[in-house]
Amino acid sequence: VFAALRASGATRVAIEDPGFLGHRLLLRRAGLEAVPVPVDGDGLRTDVLERVDADAVLVTPAHQSPMGVVLAPRRRTALLAWARARGALVIEDDYDSEYRYDRDPVGTLQGLDPERVLLAGSASKVLAPGLRLGWLLAPSWLDGALAEEKAYADLGTPVLEQLTLADFIATGGLDRHVRRMGRIYRARRDALLAALAHRLPEARVHGVAAGLHAVILMPEGLDEPAWLAAALRRGVLAHGLVHSRLAAGPPGAIVGYANQPEPALAEAVARLAAAYAEVV
Amino acid sequence: VFAALRASGATRVAIEDPGFLGHRLLLRRAGLEAVPVPVDGDGLRTDVLERVDADAVLVTPAHQSPMGVVLAPRRRTALLAWARARGALVIEDDYDSEYRYDRDPVGTLQGLDPERVLLAGSASKVLAPGLRLGWLLAPSWLDGALAEEKAYADLGTPVLEQLTLADFIATGGLDRHVRRMGRIYRARRDALLAALAHRLPEARVHGVAAGLHAVILMPEGLDEPAWLAAALRRGVLAHGLVHSRLAAGPPGAIVGYANQPEPALAEAVARLAAAYAEVV
Repeated sequence: VFAALRASGATRVAIEDPGFLGHRLLLRRAGLEAVPVPVDGDGLRTDVLERVDADAVLVTPAHQSPMGVVLAPRRRTALLAWARARGALVIEDDYDSEYRYDRDPVGTLQGLDPERVLLAGSASKVLAPGLRLGWLLAPSWLDGALAEEKAYADLGTPVLEQLTLADFIATGGLDRHVRRMGRIYRARRDALLAALAHRLPEARVHGVAAGLHAVILMPEGLDEPAWLAAALRRGVLAHGLVHSRLAAGPPGAIVGYANQPEPALAEAVARLAAAYAEVV
Repeated sequence: VFAALRASGATRVAIEDPGFLGHRLLLRRAGLEAVPVPVDGDGLRTDVLERVDADAVLVTPAHQSPMGVVLAPRRRTALLAWARARGALVIEDDYDSEYRYDRDPVGTLQGLDPERVLLAGSASKVLAPGLRLGWLLAPSWLDGALAEEKAYADLGTPVLEQLTLADFIATGGLDRHVRRMGRIYRARRDALLAALAHRLPEARVHGVAAGLHAVILMPEGLDEPAWLAAALRRGVLAHGLVHSRLAAGPPGAIVGYANQPEPALAEAVARLAAAYAEVV
């Protein structure tokens, strides 16, 4: 997508801050300049975006990466208005919104303006990253550039997974899978939240209404790298927010809960707490 | 591979002429200059290569693409000597040598100098292109750049095909498949050769001791595009040599015979002959 965007003449792309490190790396690789725009509790600050000179904006409106907020309705309207006024592309990365626990589904931006918004989805969270499957709903004017980039990148995606996934969707298997795994992930999320409340009350938890990770913000002054290094020595890997953030912000971590049973999550939180006690 | 080579500082890559159009397109995409070196009946003209200033050479020694010749032993020695003297990388594209009919296996260049030669193999011909599987045996000094390029390109190849292929190899399934398909492809090749001898005696046939395609060279003066356009109107698609060649050469075509039963191949040759009769 980024290479096709670059080939179409774009040079600057607005991104969310905090945001997904992988986006920044891929933009740089494609020769595009990333322009950070802050995120608050309603998602991307569109009032800041309106002052930004960019050819595209890359957003995670359904479950902001990493903070987990939903882009507010008023912001959605403002985002699309900005894009239309500039002729900019909106890249909507919907990476994990299949799993929801305490909220209704969020409509896509793409559905509101299909020629202005490119929607990217992925099987990595809803099924498995080892499938290496994703999909794009792209504006028609990008078709040619996207097809060319795809041909140069890999001549196409393996066919067996694609056909199997299509069958899995058509027969209702994916819906059943999401319902079944949603119950499992909800129980894991609840175990994580309970353990955090019990063992690490200093943590403020964000973004857990959907998706497969929580963001925990810690008290100002904590040495985030030292804390997470101490956790890693105890066998717990959590990504610090330093990798997500360009502007300054409180220390914290991204904690995935999808692939661990409840007792392991409680134990992981106990170790995060012990690491916290060690460094404060 | 080409992006990693570019990242390692290379700028010019010697290629075979005639050669594979895809190689040229990918080199250009990676920002590398392709320097053509002629091919004769013994493969790449290493006497010409020796006067070429390049950081790497890209060859198809087991079954030259498209001409189908084998790189002669003396040329292999000269090629490696050139690479060693310059510190250049040899990229050995072994795309189809699993299927052999009238000759012994050809050893790889990579086996002669693993730190100087990168060997690329593919499941596309031996099994199916829809698997999108290939493999590299790379010099250790390229490991880091290759891993980085792979991560940026796709974060890795789908795991199911890789595990299945590993099992298929370990259990002897691939060997059985190659033996079984080799008999089928040999019969198809023989049917193609018989039809060409009977219906299109003007064609000189090259490169059919191995692989899945023949090259046919036609009498000088034939309008190659007009001939193949006439064939296409009759429902037969064959790639003209014009796409393979940078220097001038006789007209001709690349004819794949792997995925058609014998009667269809005979019919295709009849239509190529009718197209020839139409344009001469």
